[in-house]
Amino acid sequence: MKRNLLLTPGPTQIPPEICAALGKPIIHHRTPQFQENLKEAIEGLKYVFQTKNDIYILTSSGTGGMEAAVSNLLSPGDKAITVEGGKFGERWTEICQSYGVVTKVIQVPWGKAVQASEIKKTLDADKNIKAVFITLAETSTGITTDVEAVAKVVNHTGAVLVVDAVSGLGVVDLKTDAWGVDVVVSASHKGLMLPPGLAFVSASEKALKLIETSKSPRYYFDLRKSREALADVDTPFTPAIGIVIALNESLRRVKQEGLENLFAYYAKLAQGTREAAKALGLSLFPDESCISNVLTAISLPAAIDGGKVMKIMRDTHGISVAGGQDTLKGKIIRIAHMGCVDEYDILTGISCLEKVLLKLGHKFTLGAGVAAAQKVFNS
Amino acid sequence: MKRNLLLTPGPTQIPPEICAALGKPIIHHRTPQFQENLKEAIEGLKYVFQTKNDIYILTSSGTGGMEAAVSNLLSPGDKAITVEGGKFGERWTEICQSYGVVTKVIQVPWGKAVQASEIKKTLDADKNIKAVFITLAETSTGITTDVEAVAKVVNHTGAVLVVDAVSGLGVVDLKTDAWGVDVVVSASHKGLMLPPGLAFVSASEKALKLIETSKSPRYYFDLRKSREALADVDTPFTPAIGIVIALNESLRRVKQEGLENLFAYYAKLAQGTREAAKALGLSLFPDESCISNVLTAISLPAAIDGGKVMKIMRDTHGISVAGGQDTLKGKIIRIAHMGCVDEYDILTGISCLEKVLLKLGHKFTLGAGVAAAQKVFNS
Repeated sequence: MKRNLLLTPGPTQIPPEICAALGKPIIHHRTPQFQENLKEAIEGLKYVFQTKNDIYILTSSGTGGMEAAVSNLLSPGDKAITVEGGKFGERWTEICQSYGVVTKVIQVPWGKAVQASEIKKTLDADKNIKAVFITLAETSTGITTDVEAVAKVVNHTGAVLVVDAVSGLGVVDLKTDAWGVDVVVSASHKGLMLPPGLAFVSASEKALKLIETSKSPRYYFDLRKSREALADVDTPFTPAIGIVIALNESLRRVKQEGLENLFAYYAKLAQGTREAAKALGLSLFPDESCISNVLTAISLPAAIDGGKVMKIMRDTHGISVAGGQDTLKGKIIRIAHMGCVDEYDILTGISCLEKVLLKLGHKFTLGAGVAAAQKVFNS
Repeated sequence: MKRNLLLTPGPTQIPPEICAALGKPIIHHRTPQFQENLKEAIEGLKYVFQTKNDIYILTSSGTGGMEAAVSNLLSPGDKAITVEGGKFGERWTEICQSYGVVTKVIQVPWGKAVQASEIKKTLDADKNIKAVFITLAETSTGITTDVEAVAKVVNHTGAVLVVDAVSGLGVVDLKTDAWGVDVVVSASHKGLMLPPGLAFVSASEKALKLIETSKSPRYYFDLRKSREALADVDTPFTPAIGIVIALNESLRRVKQEGLENLFAYYAKLAQGTREAAKALGLSLFPDESCISNVLTAISLPAAIDGGKVMKIMRDTHGISVAGGQDTLKGKIIRIAHMGCVDEYDILTGISCLEKVLLKLGHKFTLGAGVAAAQKVFNS
């Protein structure tokens, strides 16, 4: 009778209707029938991305989309800014360096977000910087970057702004066109409630110019091929057909709810989760100024091993949250509130967290976390 | 009431049990539960690949696996042999050239397979050639390469042999270890009856040495990362979880049937398809000496447009076969017999082909194709 609840930052829960779509018989991808699906998917993605730019669908994890951004925009020896304030920011550096891109790394303490002014300073110091890579929701630490402020700074320069929105798209606001974000990378298995297998990359006119001139080797992730295929409502290589078809189920839901409503919805789930943590005598890991509505990172008392909390919640009670990564291993747990999750899922998660904390000897009033979250949800 | 029968060379039909597995609720990939699935999948793949070598699972189409082979084995300026006798052979050349690999291209007329002696001659002429790229089943033309003969030639040299078995794995014999094939690339949506989304790459000791030394830029497809993760029963990036789990359904079926039985089974389906074509007064496109059991390429009379045949079969009758590509456009149709297909599917396909040929004015005895195939299936 054990449930299998995912409050993890990807994969997220898949609603039964989308599971059903994934179990449908397959159709061939080079058919008018699939083209209709592909067309609808691209249109739906444009709504979620808040853009009129091209969006390319790649069959890969989000990291494949990130690599596509780097290898298509930059050539070996080009300079780029990356921001290291968590695991996914570090990934931008790693990918850039794999391609011989010279990285100007801005270090940010884990739990804080980069300031637009720091990016401005770095851009001002070197007019040859061609790209700025940031992370919308750094799920390793629970922060959200102020993309709008960064975009204001980058838009005045020749550099392109690339945002890893793998986590965060459809959960928190990202006005690709209105803010002037050149490239947005996302994936299927986070806010969009699908299994992993698809990455999405949008590209502005400014980005397309770089894509045409980049000298980095690439084939499968060559966005010139994607662009050419897109013009014929096609993909250059066989796509993950089943996930593309299910994507339309997801996109119809998102459209029906409306983006603004979704952002408010997740903000409330996040606030409830934060209040619950505080009511249990726990502190929030990230800085209040940049705390994320995508995922709540909760610091645990030194006496309690976060890895143990995560494992007991998952293996004994069937409720999955994430532990800490790297230096945060054992020190935090992370509760995601993105995709197909509602207030009762959050209450379930908090209730289970209370159960395990009680068992591990943490002192608090049983029920305090759940009540605090309920208070938010009913306000 | 129209059926949706795929006799196409990928995607192939997905059996209902595998569709059901694809529709299951998702589990997280960094869990003991998923690790069990991953372990079972790797073991099952080793059976199908006929190898004890490492097998890496990538989330991509087959082309991603092909690119992984090139970028991990070779550095810019390295020399490699590719064989162009169809679209997929050409793809090896294109990928190599994208990575600055110097290609010694062996041209083969479409419909013929490369001779091992030609590869020997090219290898003998240049001792610096580091890799030989061939195609097990060239589905654009309907031939199968004699991999065993090529392996005998390559094994005496310092070069590695890389086989694109995206089509063909589990359909025709490929003794990776016994023949000495260094790298085999395959994918989920052909013989393995799954949706597209996964590629598989096996690597011998000889290949692993190159993988450690290659200077080509790579990140998502970096097989060093895959190897490291595999040692921990993990993948370096979020895999297409749902397809990995469904893969085990497929691999259990393959194991239960037994590879040798499957090869004989598909050989019979292929023979039936060929006899049917001949009985309809059509000729087979590929050379008899290398004709494939994976897919039958049938030449059409000049008066009949193959594209039209394909479209009427699909759009009017719900039965999908493939048309010709490039210079073969309109001149051939291709009927695949791989994955989840039985003799009644083939009879259905032939019967539909007869209906359409009749309509388009081709002269033959109605029923002759079906009867010829039946004769083979009942012999």
